[in-house]
Amino acid sequence: SFSRGMQTVTMIPGDGIGPEISAAVMKIFDAAKAPIRWEERNVTAIKGPGGKWMIPPDAKESMDRSKIGLKGPLKTPIAAGHPSMNLLLRKTFDLYANVRPCVSIEGYKTPYTDVDLVTIRENTEGEYSGIEHVIVEGVVQSIKLITENASRRIAEYAFEYARNNQRSSVTAVHKANIMRMSDGLFLRKCREVAESYKDIKFTEMYLDTVCLNMVQDPTQFDVLVMPNLYGDILSDLCAGLIGGLGVTPSGNIGANGVAIFESVHGTAPDIAGMDLANPTALLLSAVMMLRHMGLHDFAHRIQTACFDTIKDKKVLTKDLGGSSKCSEFTAEICRRVQDLA
Amino acid sequence: SFSRGMQTVTMIPGDGIGPEISAAVMKIFDAAKAPIRWEERNVTAIKGPGGKWMIPPDAKESMDRSKIGLKGPLKTPIAAGHPSMNLLLRKTFDLYANVRPCVSIEGYKTPYTDVDLVTIRENTEGEYSGIEHVIVEGVVQSIKLITENASRRIAEYAFEYARNNQRSSVTAVHKANIMRMSDGLFLRKCREVAESYKDIKFTEMYLDTVCLNMVQDPTQFDVLVMPNLYGDILSDLCAGLIGGLGVTPSGNIGANGVAIFESVHGTAPDIAGMDLANPTALLLSAVMMLRHMGLHDFAHRIQTACFDTIKDKKVLTKDLGGSSKCSEFTAEICRRVQDLA
Ligand SMILES: CC(C)[C@H](C(=O)O)[C@@H](O)C(=O)O
Ligand SMILES: CC(C)[C@H](C(=O)O)[C@@H](O)C(=O)O
Repeated sequence: SFSRGMQTVTMIPGDGIGPEISAAVMKIFDAAKAPIRWEERNVTAIKGPGGKWMIPPDAKESMDRSKIGLKGPLKTPIAAGHPSMNLLLRKTFDLYANVRPCVSIEGYKTPYTDVDLVTIRENTEGEYSGIEHVIVEGVVQSIKLITENASRRIAEYAFEYARNNQRSSVTAVHKANIMRMSDGLFLRKCREVAESYKDIKFTEMYLDTVCLNMVQDPTQFDVLVMPNLYGDILSDLCAGLIGGLGVTPSGNIGANGVAIFESVHGTAPDIAGMDLANPTALLLSAVMMLRHMGLHDFAHRIQTACFDTIKDKKVLTKDLGGSSKCSEFTAEICRRVQDLA
Repeated sequence: SFSRGMQTVTMIPGDGIGPEISAAVMKIFDAAKAPIRWEERNVTAIKGPGGKWMIPPDAKESMDRSKIGLKGPLKTPIAAGHPSMNLLLRKTFDLYANVRPCVSIEGYKTPYTDVDLVTIRENTEGEYSGIEHVIVEGVVQSIKLITENASRRIAEYAFEYARNNQRSSVTAVHKANIMRMSDGLFLRKCREVAESYKDIKFTEMYLDTVCLNMVQDPTQFDVLVMPNLYGDILSDLCAGLIGGLGVTPSGNIGANGVAIFESVHGTAPDIAGMDLANPTALLLSAVMMLRHMGLHDFAHRIQTACFDTIKDKKVLTKDLGGSSKCSEFTAEICRRVQDLA
């Protein structure tokens, strides 16, 4: 049949500009004849039995089958007690590694050139444990939870990633001088895992020192691995170096091939539906997804078409410094993708 | 007597390059005829009754009298259980506000110009509470402690600082979307205090968003106030924007005028004693100290002499891009200070 060799991906278009940029990505995938069948699903949290927030069963069921998701931005609900949908998705599918490659984009000027690094963030515990207490009136504690298993798992992921992506070093980012037990445990696991990867250089650095060095010379970094909150901070900082969340891809990786790739920018409600949005971050996340699925040729062609369009500077959305519509930018990438075929 | 109008300052020269850069600062203060009498003290932690680490009694006693300290870098002892001396000093004198102005230095090129912001970091609690537990083998928790009192106190400090230093806005930096109770409490206190400072604009921003925006356009920020760890990270990031810890001053402020000003770079053991160190960070910290003591004229003259020397580019230490010795750089600043008299 026509769908022979096709793989299913659960598409979560998201809110605000989500539907437009998802449509753009699907158009470009069509133009590239990428062997992907999309299953669109909405994820608005619902209350399950016992009052627990969960993602809708048909979205869960699609992900369970496809194992792979692509996701646009989701608005954060304001209802009290309502969880962030992003966090709920990471949790539901135990997506323990958050991976964000930051690579300077030719033609898109920032104060930095030649940035080429990857932040790998532990995505399930640490400061995001959600455990908090009021001790007495006016005294609150939040618990940062670090486990041996999650630390070893993310360290192993980082070293495997480095090896499989021809990267030469892994830096563990920590504050074990302050959080001696928790960051100490994380760091110990990184050191242990490093022993099994003699081909990859291992270094350790304090988070504050990383931030300072990062803004002075980001080219000194390669793969960085770190606990949850540090990754939240550092991945955004690094995105800033190459042009912001509008051009930075992201992947949340779990066990057994399960993964959700997502653009991490906001829903931009002010321009939603106006054909002004920039689909680059979602497109580059989709390119990461293709690589994850082993579809390297398609990944390469789509990425090249996207980067060439940006380098060429003729057809760019407003945030990229141009005056073209989302549909025009998309059409230009489609044209180039077909030329590359 | 000759010492009429003199004020005493406890000088903690510190380790490594500490003695050289302290000597440089004292020379420049002499040249400026600054009315300061230095009381030099060593702080090497000792074990007090009950095995508690404490700073030596003669250093404590000097600080108790003078209320004002100037401190070079201190090496972090490697002995297990030994506290960081920097943290012990902050704790001993309840120096609750860590203040780091980051201002672009004319003539010292970085990717950024016109940076002019101040980070104000809560210095006593948060992630630095030191409370950690092993729950079960392989599971560790660290406790982040946020109190109403410390949050209100630092928020008040930030707004007072803004008002007294002709600054127009204060941004509270937080992750209250994740740490809803602890950062939530911190944020609530900032909002409450903001109510009493209608002349100062108040904004709130997620830490990750601040980092991203910071590297894209630091000129949008003014005064930033935040919990302990976020301040550790952000102050180093901001120092990186203007040239690093070698040119960034810092002050730790307590109640009733008590304060310790310090350079926050390392002890640089590799160049210690070689007359190669750059005294700028300690000198600019001493300038902050003069302002804190109300000696604005002296502060202005010394700062001008320092910045003019850097702008002029003729006599610079190696890290600043020159080839002069610490003593030559110091002599040049002394010459200019005298000319400005
Ligand atoms: C949306 C928010 C909960 C999330 C986080 O803090 O992890 C975001 O900042 C991210 O980095 O994906
Ligand atoms: C030396 C270290 C304990 C300290 C900290 O983490 O606060 C340092 O990084 C600082 O910023 O003063």
